[in-house]
Amino acid sequence: MFTFRRPKVRLEVPRLKPRGEALQLPRVNLAELTPALLPYLGQAAYIQLSLFESLSRIVTQAPTVAHKESLGPAAGQALDKHERLVAEIRRHVSDPAVIMQPFAAAIDDYREVVAGANWYEALTSLYVSAGILDDFFIHLAAGLENGSGPRMVQILDAESGRQAIATIVAEGIANDPKLGSHLAMWGRRVVGDTLLVARSAIHHTDNRNSDEQRIEPVFTEVIAAHTRRMDGLGLTA
Amino acid sequence: MFTFRRPKVRLEVPRLKPRGEALQLPRVNLAELTPALLPYLGQAAYIQLSLFESLSRIVTQAPTVAHKESLGPAAGQALDKHERLVAEIRRHVSDPAVIMQPFAAAIDDYREVVAGANWYEALTSLYVSAGILDDFFIHLAAGLENGSGPRMVQILDAESGRQAIATIVAEGIANDPKLGSHLAMWGRRVVGDTLLVARSAIHHTDNRNSDEQRIEPVFTEVIAAHTRRMDGLGLTA
Repeated sequence: MFTFRRPKVRLEVPRLKPRGEALQLPRVNLAELTPALLPYLGQAAYIQLSLFESLSRIVTQAPTVAHKESLGPAAGQALDKHERLVAEIRRHVSDPAVIMQPFAAAIDDYREVVAGANWYEALTSLYVSAGILDDFFIHLAAGLENGSGPRMVQILDAESGRQAIATIVAEGIANDPKLGSHLAMWGRRVVGDTLLVARSAIHHTDNRNSDEQRIEPVFTEVIAAHTRRMDGLGLTA
Repeated sequence: MFTFRRPKVRLEVPRLKPRGEALQLPRVNLAELTPALLPYLGQAAYIQLSLFESLSRIVTQAPTVAHKESLGPAAGQALDKHERLVAEIRRHVSDPAVIMQPFAAAIDDYREVVAGANWYEALTSLYVSAGILDDFFIHLAAGLENGSGPRMVQILDAESGRQAIATIVAEGIANDPKLGSHLAMWGRRVVGDTLLVARSAIHHTDNRNSDEQRIEPVFTEVIAAHTRRMDGLGLTA
């Protein structure tokens, strides 16, 4: 199979001292694993569309009008990210659907797997997957060609809807402590499936073992951020 | 039962000549039937939320990524109208859900009745109900207190998403002429249910017969606009 290969440019800056406990992102190595711009945009845009679909289902099934009301903006936020990413695709091709299509089946399957058996599970899934996937695509953006990375970060880093979800889940847990341990368990399962989606975004070189070693620190960082978000809900990640 | 009564102000301007074929809206009489501002906003906001929910379900179930893509903005548009109406409610009360709540059950029922048995029926329902209800609430806005009518018209008159729906339905009909006659029939049923929702928005005076006579010309006008929109799809209303 013919695959496009990105030029391997190494721009490593020697570090004299480790920066304390802070994780050092392997920016240059990650750049080699960053997909070309259009596949990156296609997958990121379809993921946001899928998050929007999950969120709008959550809005529809919300138990009260107040819940609908407070979650509406989160759905709008995902849709807005989707549309801004589609606008980026249109800078290069006229039919964005063609660029998103290759990712549709896998993301649709993922959405079904993490849909959850009830409303709180669905909400927790959304919180976990939006957090991890936005984060991961922000990391990948550092390696994008033509300096388009910062624009992608600006699009994906907006998260005005997340706090509403956190508040609602935290309220649910406060009212029912057993819900907390259940959702913590459910969240761990969602993390596994979500990391598979993240992994599918990587452009692989000829040396898969080395790819895995390079991506591992990024996953460690992404999961650390996920753990902090779960702490915010009072849940153990 | 205690109900708020709005002062009956007549500001009729004598008309010397009928304006050709153009329908004359009974603005002053309609003003008597316009609900107070908060119930108006509560019902209009919940209707837009409901249209958003229907649309996002339509996006989720769309047969292709291209269809999802072109319908996304329509969903965003309904959500945006909802949020702008909610912002109007917040100018007066801190909890918008309380103002929307009284309308939730009836609108939810309506949405279920017009949900449709398949994707094209759902799309046609949406097209019919968004068109009629936006229109009707724009007519009612003329009678709102404190001059807030024009702002409501500005919010409700935005319709950037409708063209995408029309294009998709028209394509479906072009590919399958039987679909056209089926959707025309389905559309007529949806009109009936939608006018019941519109009717439920009216503030009734002590004389229900006279209310009906006053509102009838508005319905005539709303249905004429609906017929033009259906013509745009190649469907007989």
